[in-house]
Amino acid sequence: MITLPYLLQKENICRFEDATFFIGDRRVFPFEKAFVQCFSVEEIAESLKKMVTQGGGPLQVALTTLSYCGHRMEQGTMNANISTFSEAVACLVSARPTNTTMARVLVELLEQITLLFQKNGTIHDIARAIDDLVLEKERYFDNIYHFMGQLGSSLLTNGDTILTTCFAEHTFLLSLAYAKEAGKEVSVLACETRPYLQGARLTAPSLRELGIPVKLITDGMGANLLSRGKVNLYFTAADVVCMDGTVVNKIGTLSNAIACAYYHIPYYAFSISPDRTKLDSSTLQIEERSGREVTHCLGSRITEEGIEALYPSFDIVPHSLVEGLVTPKGILKPSDLSGAYL
Amino acid sequence: MITLPYLLQKENICRFEDATFFIGDRRVFPFEKAFVQCFSVEEIAESLKKMVTQGGGPLQVALTTLSYCGHRMEQGTMNANISTFSEAVACLVSARPTNTTMARVLVELLEQITLLFQKNGTIHDIARAIDDLVLEKERYFDNIYHFMGQLGSSLLTNGDTILTTCFAEHTFLLSLAYAKEAGKEVSVLACETRPYLQGARLTAPSLRELGIPVKLITDGMGANLLSRGKVNLYFTAADVVCMDGTVVNKIGTLSNAIACAYYHIPYYAFSISPDRTKLDSSTLQIEERSGREVTHCLGSRITEEGIEALYPSFDIVPHSLVEGLVTPKGILKPSDLSGAYL
Repeated sequence: MITLPYLLQKENICRFEDATFFIGDRRVFPFEKAFVQCFSVEEIAESLKKMVTQGGGPLQVALTTLSYCGHRMEQGTMNANISTFSEAVACLVSARPTNTTMARVLVELLEQITLLFQKNGTIHDIARAIDDLVLEKERYFDNIYHFMGQLGSSLLTNGDTILTTCFAEHTFLLSLAYAKEAGKEVSVLACETRPYLQGARLTAPSLRELGIPVKLITDGMGANLLSRGKVNLYFTAADVVCMDGTVVNKIGTLSNAIACAYYHIPYYAFSISPDRTKLDSSTLQIEERSGREVTHCLGSRITEEGIEALYPSFDIVPHSLVEGLVTPKGILKPSDLSGAYL
Repeated sequence: MITLPYLLQKENICRFEDATFFIGDRRVFPFEKAFVQCFSVEEIAESLKKMVTQGGGPLQVALTTLSYCGHRMEQGTMNANISTFSEAVACLVSARPTNTTMARVLVELLEQITLLFQKNGTIHDIARAIDDLVLEKERYFDNIYHFMGQLGSSLLTNGDTILTTCFAEHTFLLSLAYAKEAGKEVSVLACETRPYLQGARLTAPSLRELGIPVKLITDGMGANLLSRGKVNLYFTAADVVCMDGTVVNKIGTLSNAIACAYYHIPYYAFSISPDRTKLDSSTLQIEERSGREVTHCLGSRITEEGIEALYPSFDIVPHSLVEGLVTPKGILKPSDLSGAYL
């Protein structure tokens, strides 16, 4: 039985008690295990914008927010009509424009919630039904996480070292945990992932919690280790996967993907939900974040005042650099994705 | 007339007064303009090991150390014989094994100092002659810096954006300064260069001082900007250039060089002294530094205690990724280097 690390345990991602919505603050982990408290959907969305949680966190926050709205509606502190939910969905979606999985799940659930309101049940019935919808969706994703973890594990051979960027969450961590459970000794080289240091702060401690050997490197070191034959595979999550196999993921992913291609090391991206609405990269919307995040590290200025910086927060990795996509429909070649999903 | 930025002004790199040797502390720049004080060659070498200065700094420190030893010999606080100098050279060379330019210059000057001792002049005469040797070498490098700066400038076209890693010092900064003087509007994307942040702390402020527009990026962003057509050229220094055109430079250089090749953007490395003794990469000795430097940023821990890290401090860039080498003998194709130097 695999126990998820602290960061991925549901109650540590987010939860609510009455009107207080708690979001696990990944910005201060592992130095503090703190929660940001929100008292409205606007505040929750604002927390997503501020990267209080990231990766798969926003999806869990979005699901829990629907339950939260149902409970507040029941308590009479939110309006008991569909607008409460449609406005919540719009607010959450606009907070993280690159996170199309979250957007699609929210839109799907909003349709189902619309039907619940049309049925004219009691407010109590509607709130319970929303809880059930959310729980069902959570179980759906849990199953996918474990299935994809087993797929990821099948790619690993005893002795392998995996390079990774950012915090690839459930599917990545479960891949390594299942490999370990199967008796394979695997280790990880985690890129620190500036500016937020998700690799240093989230990935490395979570792997250590799982008992997987991990070494931290800076974002410029991947090619060096590849050049010396120290890497067998490159694994990352994917914020978006287009139908042609294009992968959108945290800044720094492209650089390593190109280096992997140069050294003939396979790159696999994990996606719980390739995006049927995106045929290719032409319609992708990439967040440009504030340069202030680059001119600072853990709150300390790293250069002199007045120096400007750029922060394109995601890379678009062309499908030609992708060996395979680990998806709920199996491990697919980029060229096989559209056939499996369209 | 081009004024060098603060960091490259000779008295800010190092100087001495009596027995006190001052080294400009690049580790705290631009937050402080501080100097580390040394009172022996061992302490100077220790400062080089600790990266108080880096890039071209150690060469200037090494040259000034020979004058310093001459002056102390004159004052009677160091032994008046060749051992003082041969031990100083051994000590300095072992402090930075990758810096073969510094080593070669020291060995060359040591031969000349040996001849001075054999001539049986007064201690005063020998000390003055050492000062002259050092001054002559400094002028030799100053001329080279300006010549190579003009060569670098010749590669730049109005509107160009240059990607760079680490702090490429005189030749790089002078290239941009000469381009600006010639009326070309050029700008720079500076990789922050973790773990020491030389790009953020040294390159960006020095460019700003010269009036060259600069934007800071993290070490994982180069490929992203290349993929969007935002980069015209990649320029770096080179700690070593082998006779086959292999370039050794700060960690992070290889990653960008591979991405440049992928996007057909030319990479030029600047070397004041390609290494005739290194035919290729087979005999290169690369410093592995402490992982503690990666687990910290500006002194603050970036991950939880107990997480290990790797710090290969230099990349070896194969000549196939190098468009050209800017050298005292002109801008050379890697394949033309050995003909020009052997």
